[in-house]
Amino acid sequence: MIADLLIHNALVLTLEPGAPPLTEGYVAIRGRRLAAVGRAPHSRDLPRAREVLNVQGSLVLPGLVNTHCHAPMVWFRGLADDLPLHQWLTEAIFPAESGWLTPERVYLGALLAAAEMIRGGITTVADGYFYAGEVRRALAAAGLRGVAAQGVLDFPVPGVPDPQDNLKVAAAFLNSGADLAAEGISSAVFCHAVYTCGPETLRQAKDLTRERGTRFFIHLAETREEVCEVQRRTGLTPAAYLESLGVLDEGTVAVHAAWLTPAEQCLLARRGVKVSHCPESNLKLAAGVAPIPELLAAGVTVGLGTDGAASNNNLDLWGEMSLAARLHKVWSQDPTVLPAARAVALATREGARVLGLEDAIGTLTPGKEADLIVVDLDQPHLTPLYDPYSHLVYAARAADVRHVMVRGRWLLFNGQLTTLDWPEIAGKIRAGSRDLAGFCQKNRPLAP
Amino acid sequence: MIADLLIHNALVLTLEPGAPPLTEGYVAIRGRRLAAVGRAPHSRDLPRAREVLNVQGSLVLPGLVNTHCHAPMVWFRGLADDLPLHQWLTEAIFPAESGWLTPERVYLGALLAAAEMIRGGITTVADGYFYAGEVRRALAAAGLRGVAAQGVLDFPVPGVPDPQDNLKVAAAFLNSGADLAAEGISSAVFCHAVYTCGPETLRQAKDLTRERGTRFFIHLAETREEVCEVQRRTGLTPAAYLESLGVLDEGTVAVHAAWLTPAEQCLLARRGVKVSHCPESNLKLAAGVAPIPELLAAGVTVGLGTDGAASNNNLDLWGEMSLAARLHKVWSQDPTVLPAARAVALATREGARVLGLEDAIGTLTPGKEADLIVVDLDQPHLTPLYDPYSHLVYAARAADVRHVMVRGRWLLFNGQLTTLDWPEIAGKIRAGSRDLAGFCQKNRPLAP
Repeated sequence: MIADLLIHNALVLTLEPGAPPLTEGYVAIRGRRLAAVGRAPHSRDLPRAREVLNVQGSLVLPGLVNTHCHAPMVWFRGLADDLPLHQWLTEAIFPAESGWLTPERVYLGALLAAAEMIRGGITTVADGYFYAGEVRRALAAAGLRGVAAQGVLDFPVPGVPDPQDNLKVAAAFLNSGADLAAEGISSAVFCHAVYTCGPETLRQAKDLTRERGTRFFIHLAETREEVCEVQRRTGLTPAAYLESLGVLDEGTVAVHAAWLTPAEQCLLARRGVKVSHCPESNLKLAAGVAPIPELLAAGVTVGLGTDGAASNNNLDLWGEMSLAARLHKVWSQDPTVLPAARAVALATREGARVLGLEDAIGTLTPGKEADLIVVDLDQPHLTPLYDPYSHLVYAARAADVRHVMVRGRWLLFNGQLTTLDWPEIAGKIRAGSRDLAGFCQKNRPLAP
Repeated sequence: MIADLLIHNALVLTLEPGAPPLTEGYVAIRGRRLAAVGRAPHSRDLPRAREVLNVQGSLVLPGLVNTHCHAPMVWFRGLADDLPLHQWLTEAIFPAESGWLTPERVYLGALLAAAEMIRGGITTVADGYFYAGEVRRALAAAGLRGVAAQGVLDFPVPGVPDPQDNLKVAAAFLNSGADLAAEGISSAVFCHAVYTCGPETLRQAKDLTRERGTRFFIHLAETREEVCEVQRRTGLTPAAYLESLGVLDEGTVAVHAAWLTPAEQCLLARRGVKVSHCPESNLKLAAGVAPIPELLAAGVTVGLGTDGAASNNNLDLWGEMSLAARLHKVWSQDPTVLPAARAVALATREGARVLGLEDAIGTLTPGKEADLIVVDLDQPHLTPLYDPYSHLVYAARAADVRHVMVRGRWLLFNGQLTTLDWPEIAGKIRAGSRDLAGFCQKNRPLAP
């Protein structure tokens, strides 16, 4: 059997549990799948292939999995920073979302986000936003793998002026997009939070996703204020409240999960709930520090997420890896917590499990889909090299990603986007951002 | 008067306090100094120059100032991570330093560090290490501005087998290098810590630097263990102990300063002591979180530092800016703490003050030396643009630096190093690192 493409002369990290780095490694691809992965000290050991790429000692590993994003919010990158959360939301973000966003702008923003994520080695993204059909379309145009989730709130939101329709819109979204599912883009539901969705909405939204075997995402216990408010209203902490509604199971992804009691940590583990950890956003908003070492010790599956560019302000999973590995060391006063190889696993294999995609991606295993990245090691900040995991977490950066492949197709080659037209996207975004700045100026709350 | 070089069509951040960003900005350079900085909406407003560089909307700002580094420790990047501090030091770092380092290897390591720092937009570095003359020589070869400090400990160290000689070596170091001082590389003393230098060593080392008007660096209150040990031995907390020795004044730079009592914070402010904040290293070693908002409020001058690559593991000040701005928000539970513009100031203007170089560098002010960087904004993760400070701190990365100038001379142009031969350095470092790995293998402590 002849492969379509052979990538060789690589240092391969398969991310299979316990597998050592493969020096003089290769990856063979056939169609959209991995055909073979191994070591070839001599060129005679290499599989045959129609096309051959010698990556000259570069690192090859599974593509990164971004388990939480609001892609179109790149429009709001740097629009308002360093503000108290409530003021940031009510004076900057909500007005811009409700008064300025259109389906076309959601699509364009998602394209920009896709360009940034591809350049940074993200091959799969779970996105939650309004007009999720537009996000789905943009991910398809970019060639990314993704889970696009329709945002659900019991408030008027872009595309759903009457909140009574929110589940109808979500159901219609789930019922469409079969063609995109074949291209690796699935559909899901994102209930914004316990304090923005009533109990019936949460129950019914969960039922919608259960029927279809897809993921149910929710911001959970992001801030202390959220915990206090939910407790005041329901008498329960947020995760316990979701448990009382029957919403916690293996298909639920709790995003942030910063303020969980030990009992709630065990509850998530018992129910098989997944957690998306977004440390850069959590720190920037002063939201809190999630008990990740505790959740991992309890057996919870944890992935990393960038959150949206309005609160981060980048979609760079390298920063999240580095920060996660460092933050939990100082937070727990233990420098052995979340070692480098574990952090890389969270950004790849474990992220795939968070999204229920572990059979398709997350490790470089023959038979899985060919989602991989090639990282250029020939750089001052990655020299010398003793431990590739250490470099990936503590020294490498998004810009070190040289090639990106999803489903056997290059999305980035030699640092160049192959599916997206950057000058065209940039021009449209810049024009649009001037319009948005004008809108914000006009709609600024009156000075006191 | 005709300038030598005109950089125009830029978004210029002068970093002068309160100065707004200059759109359609320019910077004119004559010799090694800034001749003019301003706005030119029309090309007729531009100063005349022999050479002209249109940077097409790129960001121009002062070069970054790394206030704490151990440049040659790039040799140990990723050699040992995720270990308890004591084990990391005694089993990995100290044996490699004492048994393997040579003056030539210190020089070569410093060249590698210089390559990394230049590529990431650092134009000035304060370094503390052994064989500091070799570091000084490497900085000169790279064209970087710097303060090279000779490491002083009351233990045998590389180059100073008998600790009795440590101040003699430091004095000889300070007495040499006049030629390099003319090239922007000054000499100083770095006493490792209160727990590795006796009171007489600290007093006399401080006297040496006082006589010469140069900086005295010291790791101070880095870990809780340090505080406890110093308190046990002297009855005083570390900063109070230094005060009792008369070592605290405007020429002293306290590095890390993670565990200071409120009284010590005021003491540093009163004495004019400067602080170097190295958050990535502090987190990775689980050392602690420095009370930076409190120190700034008390009026202490604070700069950012990368620390060495053995504990970071990169020499990237962009990561430090981003982490500093985020970390102190969550630590103080206040998202308004350390806003973006302030974080950029710490990495530039305030860093220059930490090193006593505020009259020469730190802002783009006519008459100051031409140390500047050009940041490419035409990239997905920096689009759209509302606030350049926000992008520098929360979205930009080292790889976005396109040109780097020190003293009117390009060290990086179009992303290419102009003073250093990367393939040659890389080849020597890779060969050396294999030798070091072998050395560590041979000298590994016996398994229990």
